[in-house]
Amino acid sequence: MRLLECVPNISEGRDLGKITSIAEEVRKHKGVKLLDYSSDKDHHRSVFTFIGEPEAIKDAAFSLAMKAIDLIDMRVHQGGHPRLGAVDVVPFVPIQGVEMEEVIQIAHEFGKGLGKRGIPIYFYEEAATSQERKDLPSIRKGEYEGLQEKLKDPKWKPDEGPDHFNPKTGVTIVGARFPLVAYNVNLKTKDLNMAKEIAKKVRFKDGGFPHVRAMGVDLKEKGMVQVSMNLTNYRVTNIPKVYEFIKEEALKKGIEIEGSEIVGLVPLGVLEGIARNYLKCPQFSIHQAIEQRILEFE
Amino acid sequence: MRLLECVPNISEGRDLGKITSIAEEVRKHKGVKLLDYSSDKDHHRSVFTFIGEPEAIKDAAFSLAMKAIDLIDMRVHQGGHPRLGAVDVVPFVPIQGVEMEEVIQIAHEFGKGLGKRGIPIYFYEEAATSQERKDLPSIRKGEYEGLQEKLKDPKWKPDEGPDHFNPKTGVTIVGARFPLVAYNVNLKTKDLNMAKEIAKKVRFKDGGFPHVRAMGVDLKEKGMVQVSMNLTNYRVTNIPKVYEFIKEEALKKGIEIEGSEIVGLVPLGVLEGIARNYLKCPQFSIHQAIEQRILEFE
Repeated sequence: MRLLECVPNISEGRDLGKITSIAEEVRKHKGVKLLDYSSDKDHHRSVFTFIGEPEAIKDAAFSLAMKAIDLIDMRVHQGGHPRLGAVDVVPFVPIQGVEMEEVIQIAHEFGKGLGKRGIPIYFYEEAATSQERKDLPSIRKGEYEGLQEKLKDPKWKPDEGPDHFNPKTGVTIVGARFPLVAYNVNLKTKDLNMAKEIAKKVRFKDGGFPHVRAMGVDLKEKGMVQVSMNLTNYRVTNIPKVYEFIKEEALKKGIEIEGSEIVGLVPLGVLEGIARNYLKCPQFSIHQAIEQRILEFE
Repeated sequence: MRLLECVPNISEGRDLGKITSIAEEVRKHKGVKLLDYSSDKDHHRSVFTFIGEPEAIKDAAFSLAMKAIDLIDMRVHQGGHPRLGAVDVVPFVPIQGVEMEEVIQIAHEFGKGLGKRGIPIYFYEEAATSQERKDLPSIRKGEYEGLQEKLKDPKWKPDEGPDHFNPKTGVTIVGARFPLVAYNVNLKTKDLNMAKEIAKKVRFKDGGFPHVRAMGVDLKEKGMVQVSMNLTNYRVTNIPKVYEFIKEEALKKGIEIEGSEIVGLVPLGVLEGIARNYLKCPQFSIHQAIEQRILEFE
């Protein structure tokens, strides 16, 4: 069983007819499951989540992009969320049995294909062709409105597709990234500084664990504070590492952990890592889950 | 997503044609996945594992039983494994989203249906109608060869079906039980007594945790000893409880845990329990696993 996820963001969040017909393009692909899609009217933006065998996902993403490009005109797009194009961001995410190397290749092939249809492409995160293009916000700086100027700058020559501005489609940003694990640890104290200090120690930016973003949050209603984290590569830094670290740091301050929460969806690999860590069972694999066997059955 | 598992054991382990045609009966049922089947020539016995929606599983089990009864004649059966009938044991096992109460009802309905076809039925484990019939070995005592006499004993009047001996089919034992979790903890010592002493403390029979069977095992090649366990209801006693207990008991003896192993398949609920326990996140649910969403999608 090999599972790749794709989470395209497109610049249409109001016309349900269009959004549905774009979703239909994904559903047409055999072996691809459209798990979810949702739209935001203020952002004028929709997000699709689908998953399946890597090749099928690449094809489904391409069909979605073609349909979106057909239906969306960036010249009339206004919305609250930063964006560069009709098909704004297309990240490919390895969930199970796929190495990042292959995901990067798929992202590059996808970008090349879209480039051939006349859309300038930037690659980001793991698929980036240079350090400056790793970060999504810096690529998106200046937004669609600034694209015509940005594309004249040799530093921002597209990775694929034409060098010139395409007013109807804008630019598409294509990437490969690890699944994001949103994880929070609540502390039995009302002192927000405690959470902020621990967050600083745990996050990579300030010398903490690799692939960890963290901040201190005040949970006023609960009378607690929280270390709120994003783990951007759980294969390198998984939940037990940050949980145990925070527990220890809190203890030094005389504070206990009240509890923790895994927010939203995570790959089974995260649970595999938790079991392996706490039970000293490095051989344990998610393929030992009965439910996983049903997936592999198909 | 509701998942029931059925693991019938039948008294045919040599004629591949017959075994395959029995397996085919399961495959015919929509929404049922035959995950595995295997045969043992010496035991002259086969085990089938299939999983799916509860009602579909009951129907598939019935088709399998009918076919096996048609093809197997107990009057000529010889094998190394204790058995009472052509369709020897049919356990129903809740994997996800199914309560034991419902599983018992399904087992009873299945048994009633088979009884109507002329096969005497005993219910065992959670589906048992009396304390004496809970235990499989005691029901199976005397085996097929002793059935004619056993059925004359009012104490062994069948739960369903005719009271008299059916020479071609024998008796079918139908049950409901929790999934069995095979779990071992290895200790950094060569002293088998240490493992035996801890096994005694952890197992229910000698005052330990409910639904735990345990024994001490010598792992000569590894130069270690092992506490080898079966957890027969992980919802009551899950892995972290026995792991932490053994860790503590070993420490009292000055011994460390070398590692542990989860043997074979387990429901995702086991992993849910591990995460909840160690991360203090009682809200966490396996429905947060991306792969689980694919299952629910169908």
